[in-house]
Amino acid sequence: MAENIGMAARAMMNCGLAELRLVCPKDNHLSDKAIAASSNAEKILFDAKTYSSTEEAIADLQWVAATTARHRDQTKPIISAEFAAQNMADKSKKMQKCGILFGPERTGLTNQDVCLANAIINIPLNPKHCSLNLSQAVLLIGYEFYKTQKEMTAQVLETNHTEIASKDTTLKFCAFLENLLSDCGAFKLEEKKEKMTINLRNIFMRTQLTKQEIDTLYGAIKHIYRKS
Amino acid sequence: MAENIGMAARAMMNCGLAELRLVCPKDNHLSDKAIAASSNAEKILFDAKTYSSTEEAIADLQWVAATTARHRDQTKPIISAEFAAQNMADKSKKMQKCGILFGPERTGLTNQDVCLANAIINIPLNPKHCSLNLSQAVLLIGYEFYKTQKEMTAQVLETNHTEIASKDTTLKFCAFLENLLSDCGAFKLEEKKEKMTINLRNIFMRTQLTKQEIDTLYGAIKHIYRKS
Repeated sequence: MAENIGMAARAMMNCGLAELRLVCPKDNHLSDKAIAASSNAEKILFDAKTYSSTEEAIADLQWVAATTARHRDQTKPIISAEFAAQNMADKSKKMQKCGILFGPERTGLTNQDVCLANAIINIPLNPKHCSLNLSQAVLLIGYEFYKTQKEMTAQVLETNHTEIASKDTTLKFCAFLENLLSDCGAFKLEEKKEKMTINLRNIFMRTQLTKQEIDTLYGAIKHIYRKS
Repeated sequence: MAENIGMAARAMMNCGLAELRLVCPKDNHLSDKAIAASSNAEKILFDAKTYSSTEEAIADLQWVAATTARHRDQTKPIISAEFAAQNMADKSKKMQKCGILFGPERTGLTNQDVCLANAIINIPLNPKHCSLNLSQAVLLIGYEFYKTQKEMTAQVLETNHTEIASKDTTLKFCAFLENLLSDCGAFKLEEKKEKMTINLRNIFMRTQLTKQEIDTLYGAIKHIYRKS
C-alpha cells in the first residue's frame, strides 16, 4: 500500500539507506499518498525499482536475509538484527551486495520468499506483542545497520558556548563558599565543618561545572548573602 | 494527539514497557482512535496516568533522560540510545526508577523540559534526515532497553522437526555421490577426481545439512540416475 511504502522510504532515509526494490506493489509508489508519507524521502521512491518476482528482485545480490516474526518450518539460521547488521557491514566492505526482504504489512513473506534467504532475522521484541508495522521493521534493521557505519560515542558532555571549568577554578569557588559559610557561623563545630566541606566539594567537584555555571553560582550566592 | 499516544503505547508493548505517563495530553488517550492505534496495547492506555506538568510527572523518578534531535544550548551529557538503555538497566537492578521524556510530535520537548533531565539521548540516525515520529522514537529507545533484558543469541540454526545430520551420515552421502559419479565416468582423470571430490565435500560439509535434507538429496539423485 502507498502509505506503507512511503513510510518505509522515510525509515530508510533516517538510516542512510537508499536502494528500495518493490515486488509487485499493490499501489503506485509515486502516488501523492506515498510521497506524503515518505516525509521528504521521495528521492528513494523515485529511484525505487519494481520487479515482478522476489527471485528477480534479488538476482544480483550475494546475501539476503528475510524478516519474519512467524515461526517457519524451514531449516535456516535465525540471526539477531544486530548480527545481521554487522554481517552486512562486513560483506559490504568486501563489495558483496546484500539485501533484506520485508513482507507486505498483513500477510508477511511467503514460505517461497523465505526459502530464498540465507538467514532469517529475528528482531528481539516482547514475544507476547511482537507485531510491527512495515516501516517500524525497516527502521529497526536500518538503525542497527546505521550504527555499524558510525563511530559512536557512548557519552559526551555538550557545553556549547562555554567550556568546562578547571579543577582550580572549581576549587576556588568551593573555598569562596566555605569561607562565606564560616563567616556566617556555619562551622561552629570543627567536626561538622569537615563533613559539610566534603559534602559540598563532592557536589561541585563531581559534576563537570562549566565556567558559566560557576559564574552563575557566584552570582546567586552573592545575591542571597546581600539579602540576609 | 490520540493516534500518536496509541502508537506510542503499541511501541512500548513491543518492547515490554508498561508505564506510560502523559503530561497535558491534547486528546483523550482512552478515545476509540487511541485504542485502535495501540493495536492491542490498550492495557497501557488504561493504566496511563496524566499529569499537569513535567515536574509532577517525573517527581518520584531518580534518573530521567530527554529525547531530542534538535541542538539545545544547555550543558548536559549527550548519550547514545544504547548507553542510555544499559544505564537504565543497571539502575533498575538497584531499584532506581528511571524515565524517558518524549516531546509532542511536532514541537518536541521545551527547553524547560530538557533542563529537568540528567542527560539527552541522541539516537544515531542520518543527520540529514533524522526526524522520527513519536512512536518510532519510543520504539528505538524501547528496543535498546529490551535488548539489555534479554539473553540474545547472535545466530542459531533452526531445524524444526528434524535434526542436524552427523558428520558420518553426511560423509556417507558424499561417498554415495562420489561412487555414483565414478560409475558414471565422471572421474576419468585422477587429478580431476580429487578436485571434484573436494569441491563437492565442501558444499555438503560446510552447510549443516539435516537428516531430512540428506534424505531429500538421496531421493533427488536416485530420480535423476534412473532417468538417465
